[in-house]
Amino acid sequence: MELKKQDLNVAIVGATGAVGGKILEKLVERQFPAKSIKMLASKRSAGSKIIVEGKNYIVEETVPESFEGIDIAFFSAGGSISQTFAHEAVKRGAIVIDNTSAFRMDADIPLVVPEVNADELNRHNGIIANPNCSTIQMVTALKAIKEKFGINRIIVSTYQAVSGAGAEAIEELSEQSLQMDSRTDIKAVLLPSASAEKHYPIAFNVIPQIDLFDESGYTLEELKMMNETKKIFADEKIAVAATCVRLPVVTGHSESVYIELNREDVSVEDIRSAIKTTPGVVIQDDPSSQLYPMPLYAEGKDEVFVGRIRKDPTQPTGFHMWIVSDNLLKGAALNSVQIAEELIK
Amino acid sequence: MELKKQDLNVAIVGATGAVGGKILEKLVERQFPAKSIKMLASKRSAGSKIIVEGKNYIVEETVPESFEGIDIAFFSAGGSISQTFAHEAVKRGAIVIDNTSAFRMDADIPLVVPEVNADELNRHNGIIANPNCSTIQMVTALKAIKEKFGINRIIVSTYQAVSGAGAEAIEELSEQSLQMDSRTDIKAVLLPSASAEKHYPIAFNVIPQIDLFDESGYTLEELKMMNETKKIFADEKIAVAATCVRLPVVTGHSESVYIELNREDVSVEDIRSAIKTTPGVVIQDDPSSQLYPMPLYAEGKDEVFVGRIRKDPTQPTGFHMWIVSDNLLKGAALNSVQIAEELIK
Repeated sequence: MELKKQDLNVAIVGATGAVGGKILEKLVERQFPAKSIKMLASKRSAGSKIIVEGKNYIVEETVPESFEGIDIAFFSAGGSISQTFAHEAVKRGAIVIDNTSAFRMDADIPLVVPEVNADELNRHNGIIANPNCSTIQMVTALKAIKEKFGINRIIVSTYQAVSGAGAEAIEELSEQSLQMDSRTDIKAVLLPSASAEKHYPIAFNVIPQIDLFDESGYTLEELKMMNETKKIFADEKIAVAATCVRLPVVTGHSESVYIELNREDVSVEDIRSAIKTTPGVVIQDDPSSQLYPMPLYAEGKDEVFVGRIRKDPTQPTGFHMWIVSDNLLKGAALNSVQIAEELIK
Repeated sequence: MELKKQDLNVAIVGATGAVGGKILEKLVERQFPAKSIKMLASKRSAGSKIIVEGKNYIVEETVPESFEGIDIAFFSAGGSISQTFAHEAVKRGAIVIDNTSAFRMDADIPLVVPEVNADELNRHNGIIANPNCSTIQMVTALKAIKEKFGINRIIVSTYQAVSGAGAEAIEELSEQSLQMDSRTDIKAVLLPSASAEKHYPIAFNVIPQIDLFDESGYTLEELKMMNETKKIFADEKIAVAATCVRLPVVTGHSESVYIELNREDVSVEDIRSAIKTTPGVVIQDDPSSQLYPMPLYAEGKDEVFVGRIRKDPTQPTGFHMWIVSDNLLKGAALNSVQIAEELIK
């Protein structure tokens, strides 16, 4: 499917969500060649107004006919909405860039981080999947290391922000944060997952559950990181184990990542040099001046930040590092817009 | 040095600190056979009053003569205070249980977690070191696994509470937590470390630095976990790598722990059975009912909680787990009091 390079008609499904709004902002900020941007959401949100750089966007209800004449449709309204409407959009000639987990592991649907596997875009059949936020920042940071030195194995523990669970989770953290002195009495209604049976406070707490559990004892979020990393790297043999954890942080996911290379002769300096070659990845790594990535400072930034790079004390192929990025930007909206940019290159 | 089993004269150095107060509470709660408890602190705090179970304790200034007639002296006022006064106490006949890092790695000073290596108490020369909080909960949880199946390797990423940095750090989190909407403007004065040059907000943030950096690129907190674990397990060959991270949590350290065993034939059930044999360790591990340890619920509890126990997806000897405990109790005050109890058994 070829795409003309300007005057595109764009739709954003999930326009009122945390990520949908960021997609609109990024399209405007990066001067994406859109003739029109249609903001779509549920019937409940229809009629509401979104203002970006002085321009009004009126939200419309998502129906199959919404996609008539649309060239690119960004989906970020949950997996079931994508299941219902993505094929309707494709049928009407749109290319879908889907930010949910609905199609990510379908063998015939590309799962794309442009810095890592843009070539996969050549084989799409109308739908392109945007990976999970915690996966994107990790594979972007590790891509050049993998290419140059080979990576056998990844063990990652995440420190994830509440905005990954949507705008309501930010509200929940905001209210709970005022209750430090009565923290054990805090009422929770949303986290760890709206669809979970039990809810736990996130303020002054740490919840080692993101999304639901699989019968394996891993959560779906952990399995996403494990499976999506293999697909994006096109490497079934790479060993990936994840522990995914939610924290009282508004925006910005952090990751403590351990990797094992194929070779023993690699230095920290070699790792730094490799990482620097990936566009959009920034090294913040100078212990002597306390320079390392932190989510509070990554919020609102497009880059993936890497620091605390150091050799494992005993394993000669092993390295540890700390990777931080804005989960709503490179982890979601920005990556989706970058996919669209790549398509019209 | 033999200790009589009752009518002991006890001193607590650092009486006004977060841990000092908890030591007093635990001594009273556990009916430690103390005839007197002397509360010692800096000159500045002398004269202040601490009330536990209706009884008043007046804080006195610490001077060498404070230890005349003292049988057991708990030290928890920072390494330099221990360096200055611990030997003065020993000289006057006291046994020192030191909760700072001053003597932990001295070869002739036992570093003790009673559930793990109580036998080390037989070789003390007046000073016994209490390990670092993040080390204690990990070795307590892993002790029975190591004994039964052998552990070759540990990779740990921590999620540490601010109370580990003292009472002032709790104040700092409390003030900052009210400023979510202006979070990037928050002023920080203490964390990550009072002695560090730069300070960063902890509310709505994650700081991958605890204590200062070593020239190796690891922090002193990470090196404590790595070195103390070897000493407590009396195993120079065990590989330990740590990433230590501070979070906006009041009390309760969490740890994402990966271990590799000496054997391939071990099941998750075997791991659970082993863990259960250690007194004070509680398994909270049922994904189907969302049961896993969380710091908000571990606060104020004596136990070490373990959950999320699962096999690594590819490494047949590898297991992941999630370990949580109150860093002021088992991580500090309780362990110190348990050492004293062990001494008079």
